[in-house]
Amino acid sequence: MTTNGHPTGTPPVTTQPFPASRKVFVTGTRPGVRVPMREIALTPTKSPKGGAPTENEPLVVYDTSGPYTDQSVTIDLRRGLAPLRQDWILGRGDVEQLSDVTSEYGRLRAADPKLTDLRFQHIRKPLRAKRGLNVTQLHYARRGMITPEMEFIAIRENQSREVAREVASRNGVGGGVAQHPGQAWGASIPKVITPEFVRDEVARGRAIIPANINHPETEPMIIGRNFLVKINSNIGNSAVSSTIEEEVEKMIWSTRWGADTVMDLSTGKNIHETREWIIRNSPVPIGTVPIYQALEKVGGKAEDLTWDIFRDTLIEQAEQGVDYFTIHAGVRLGYVPLTANRMTGIVSRGGSIHAKWCLAHHQENFAYTHFEEICDIMKAYDVSFSLGDGLRPGSIADANDESQFAELETLGELTKIAWSHDVQVMIEGPGHVPMHLVQINMEKQLKECHEAPFYTLGPLTTDIAPGYDHITSGIGAAMIGWYGCAMLCYVTPKEHLGLPDREDVKTGVITYKIAAHAADLAKGHPGAQIRDNALSKARFEFRWEDQFNLSLDPDTAKDFHDETLPDQAAKVSHFCSMCGPHFCSMKITQDVREYAASKRVTEQQAIQIGMKEKAEEFKQSGSEIYR
Amino acid sequence: MTTNGHPTGTPPVTTQPFPASRKVFVTGTRPGVRVPMREIALTPTKSPKGGAPTENEPLVVYDTSGPYTDQSVTIDLRRGLAPLRQDWILGRGDVEQLSDVTSEYGRLRAADPKLTDLRFQHIRKPLRAKRGLNVTQLHYARRGMITPEMEFIAIRENQSREVAREVASRNGVGGGVAQHPGQAWGASIPKVITPEFVRDEVARGRAIIPANINHPETEPMIIGRNFLVKINSNIGNSAVSSTIEEEVEKMIWSTRWGADTVMDLSTGKNIHETREWIIRNSPVPIGTVPIYQALEKVGGKAEDLTWDIFRDTLIEQAEQGVDYFTIHAGVRLGYVPLTANRMTGIVSRGGSIHAKWCLAHHQENFAYTHFEEICDIMKAYDVSFSLGDGLRPGSIADANDESQFAELETLGELTKIAWSHDVQVMIEGPGHVPMHLVQINMEKQLKECHEAPFYTLGPLTTDIAPGYDHITSGIGAAMIGWYGCAMLCYVTPKEHLGLPDREDVKTGVITYKIAAHAADLAKGHPGAQIRDNALSKARFEFRWEDQFNLSLDPDTAKDFHDETLPDQAAKVSHFCSMCGPHFCSMKITQDVREYAASKRVTEQQAIQIGMKEKAEEFKQSGSEIYR
Repeated sequence: MTTNGHPTGTPPVTTQPFPASRKVFVTGTRPGVRVPMREIALTPTKSPKGGAPTENEPLVVYDTSGPYTDQSVTIDLRRGLAPLRQDWILGRGDVEQLSDVTSEYGRLRAADPKLTDLRFQHIRKPLRAKRGLNVTQLHYARRGMITPEMEFIAIRENQSREVAREVASRNGVGGGVAQHPGQAWGASIPKVITPEFVRDEVARGRAIIPANINHPETEPMIIGRNFLVKINSNIGNSAVSSTIEEEVEKMIWSTRWGADTVMDLSTGKNIHETREWIIRNSPVPIGTVPIYQALEKVGGKAEDLTWDIFRDTLIEQAEQGVDYFTIHAGVRLGYVPLTANRMTGIVSRGGSIHAKWCLAHHQENFAYTHFEEICDIMKAYDVSFSLGDGLRPGSIADANDESQFAELETLGELTKIAWSHDVQVMIEGPGHVPMHLVQINMEKQLKECHEAPFYTLGPLTTDIAPGYDHITSGIGAAMIGWYGCAMLCYVTPKEHLGLPDREDVKTGVITYKIAAHAADLAKGHPGAQIRDNALSKARFEFRWEDQFNLSLDPDTAKDFHDETLPDQAAKVSHFCSMCGPHFCSMKITQDVREYAASKRVTEQQAIQIGMKEKAEEFKQSGSEIYR
Repeated sequence: MTTNGHPTGTPPVTTQPFPASRKVFVTGTRPGVRVPMREIALTPTKSPKGGAPTENEPLVVYDTSGPYTDQSVTIDLRRGLAPLRQDWILGRGDVEQLSDVTSEYGRLRAADPKLTDLRFQHIRKPLRAKRGLNVTQLHYARRGMITPEMEFIAIRENQSREVAREVASRNGVGGGVAQHPGQAWGASIPKVITPEFVRDEVARGRAIIPANINHPETEPMIIGRNFLVKINSNIGNSAVSSTIEEEVEKMIWSTRWGADTVMDLSTGKNIHETREWIIRNSPVPIGTVPIYQALEKVGGKAEDLTWDIFRDTLIEQAEQGVDYFTIHAGVRLGYVPLTANRMTGIVSRGGSIHAKWCLAHHQENFAYTHFEEICDIMKAYDVSFSLGDGLRPGSIADANDESQFAELETLGELTKIAWSHDVQVMIEGPGHVPMHLVQINMEKQLKECHEAPFYTLGPLTTDIAPGYDHITSGIGAAMIGWYGCAMLCYVTPKEHLGLPDREDVKTGVITYKIAAHAADLAKGHPGAQIRDNALSKARFEFRWEDQFNLSLDPDTAKDFHDETLPDQAAKVSHFCSMCGPHFCSMKITQDVREYAASKRVTEQQAIQIGMKEKAEEFKQSGSEIYR
């Protein structure tokens, strides 16, 4: 690709593994189930007095980065990733390959010679459910089937617990599972995630597996409150244009740092072609807001939208492989006036488009009136609903108001309709909510929407810090994740101000990984604490490189350390750069332990015996400890 | 000053006011009570259809930046700030001016000719309580006195509420006080903060006013859970040296962005002289950890510390004007062995120094055994206790363990002793705590320490993100602030890795202002939401400059906006840079409102009337709305 968006060669994308890390795979029982994980090698713990060092087992962590961090894979964006789910999809015998795309618009784009240079060159013929059949993971789950996707997910979700067991048995101090059972609000996370548990949660509608049959490149993942909390990153070009290669790299960059799904919110030109490139190269589920593209098709005039254009757009995107659609079917005509006295009206782009259409035609929202037809499309490709919160609050003043909750009740009604079609559903949530109103959002969502997974944007806990809204929202995200939110949509520092650049995307993703992980710890997710323990142990033992490598962002951790103490020697020094040698509490603690060990007494005993001479010895040897 | 730490001229420090802001004062009833605030001017709201614009009242916000943002004041670091409390202190008739400093060490430093160039040139003779008298704000409060400091604080804490009333009556939509009464955990914040309420809270020990009689330059402030949540910033040179001028500028820089108090944690050379410069130029209370300096005096050997050296250090610093001392008197000999099996042992520098001394001498902590003598020093100068949590957890694994809570119980015992001397007390808290264990910390602290104010470091809610610990801890800080923590000690991105630079300090302070403000909103502090409302209103009305100026960091907000849309025209444009004109939901909402207004019907009526032709009109006029 060149910088004007014309793909002509292999663009540079981020492919190197993380420091001290390699890709490992855990194989399942079903053919082709091979779950990628990241293994972080650790250095040995030095013995206090020159004895043999103690090995530290490598740590295995959940890995969203796909083949881009696998050194055994050659990346070629022009060909896309290997379709790892293809055999599973075809093997179920319920899909047919179409001779051409169904969407009228899709055919026009495919036939346009001006787009040849821009177009992905290896587009597969789309798959669709055979007439009368349903290919959703929910449908399979309800029929008692454990799909390879479900087994893949069970292994993937378990990994840290398995490591936990190893670490606990080999590494001694504090290496066990969470010392403090987390407080899960209505969640019940088993100690071992089995494929049967995955199936059960999906069947009950409490979790979804976004897995379009036309996106076989995905590494299966699950969104539900009895699993690890997930995060979403947004990409997409806009009025200020960016190129296709930039968008693909943004997706890769997001997944590198931990994005579990990516939403393509493009609103500019060539979004059909951009999307194809993104999906073909994405190891994570891709979500979209189809109304954005539909609006482009009518020249930006909301009032000119029609059901037919929207329907054609859904099919166009479903056949490309989009895994979930945000659809604002809950923005009902009667709710729009409820927003009139709000501080900030309607802040959802999709919500405002539907609201404008409703008022212009004085008719009910077509996404609401045609909802069952939408379900028919969704189940033919296994596209999941992300029912949009078009009336979410855009300011603290508007949090938890009548219009927000009116829409939420409608989303609950629509959830039941989708489920009657065996279509997977998650529910989008706010937005801007002060801390004391966050939990009510979660509780109300679970009740109104029958425990369908919740997927929130933040929420931002104050409006007064533009430029820092990753932080204002990271606070709310961590809390609602703890309360049971299944996926957190990231917010970057540029929110409300401008378009995020590469660094902003990374900052947003890392902030949300922190929020999700803090929530996993608080929920008592089995094994979540293993990484904290490993990092803290490395910190205590002055294993600086391990501390960097175990962190969410090894590059930044190392850079920050090196700003103060750039010498390589400082990375093996037994004091931290913050305080210097005399003031290092960790060193003093170690000294205390060493003293006790050298005297063959525990510290407890040292005190209980209470021998004056022992105190004196320590005092004398102390001057050497500081050498 | 020059860069090698020798003050020879007026160094450059940050003095400019914030954009569109000016210093205003509210005068009290007692002589000299003149409370500084920052007034932010706002631009008018444009009328939808060319009518007269509507004025927006300026917003007044709490201001910690002191005279440095007051254009009518000439700053001269060599002379220090004006001693605004001097007349109040002397007027009470209970202090005497000493002929020389009491501390032996202080006299040595004063007499050392090598330090002449380094020394602050206008050191006042120290004040001390007359024999047998007690000059603490707690003592006055318990005797029913309302000091000028208390009236100053009442006015200062109230200001946003007063603005609230104005905004509510003049600005229309959403401009009132918090729509959602906050959920205060055991706090009871009155609608109006009166001087009597301030006195009452101080008398009950639920709040402290750090106000050393030798630091008359402070603008009085209060720390207690029924007031605005406060934040502390740390400065201080270290093994990697920095200059005096850098430390003074760090203090000014911290208070500019919102630090309510500053702790000087210097451990290098010349800390006596550095401290003098900082205190003489600080408009906020200064805290220290005296054991650091005591350790320097014995060459870094904890076992060589003595009560006499510690005592002399307390007096030395009290006579310079330090407002609160962190004293780790709760690190009792018997608790040290409880830390032996911890993941990260003792992580408090002060805690580890005392622990090492205890073990070396096999004696009880001298700060514990001499606690009543320490109280005698504190009450002679009104230095507040910040009882240190020397055994706080340094990792998620160690949170809420036996040693942490054993120490907390001792701090409760010491609180009662301090109160028996009418000495002010706050209690330091952790540290590293997962979200589900945060509230227990607050509840236990209130119970064990008899509602003395809590002052926590974070807490960090996960260990896995070095480089982002302002965020891991900002989450915990916001939550514990909501639960009732009175002051939050900031954490910078460099925590655990290196020494914070200027940008790190700013990032840490802003992150903690967010946490504190989010907590104020959630607690339902009267008027806290006014700034959120004003900013959201500006955002909704595309008053870009107002949005920047109302934010915690106007510079960054503006820079981020300008990265995407640098033209001046973009700052008055009616769409935001994120989505472009067709996708701007706020613009669409405004269009809907304008439509309703132009038709002289409300949106509600427009729907209820349900006339097809109105919908048609809107549809036709719609194409013009997008012009």
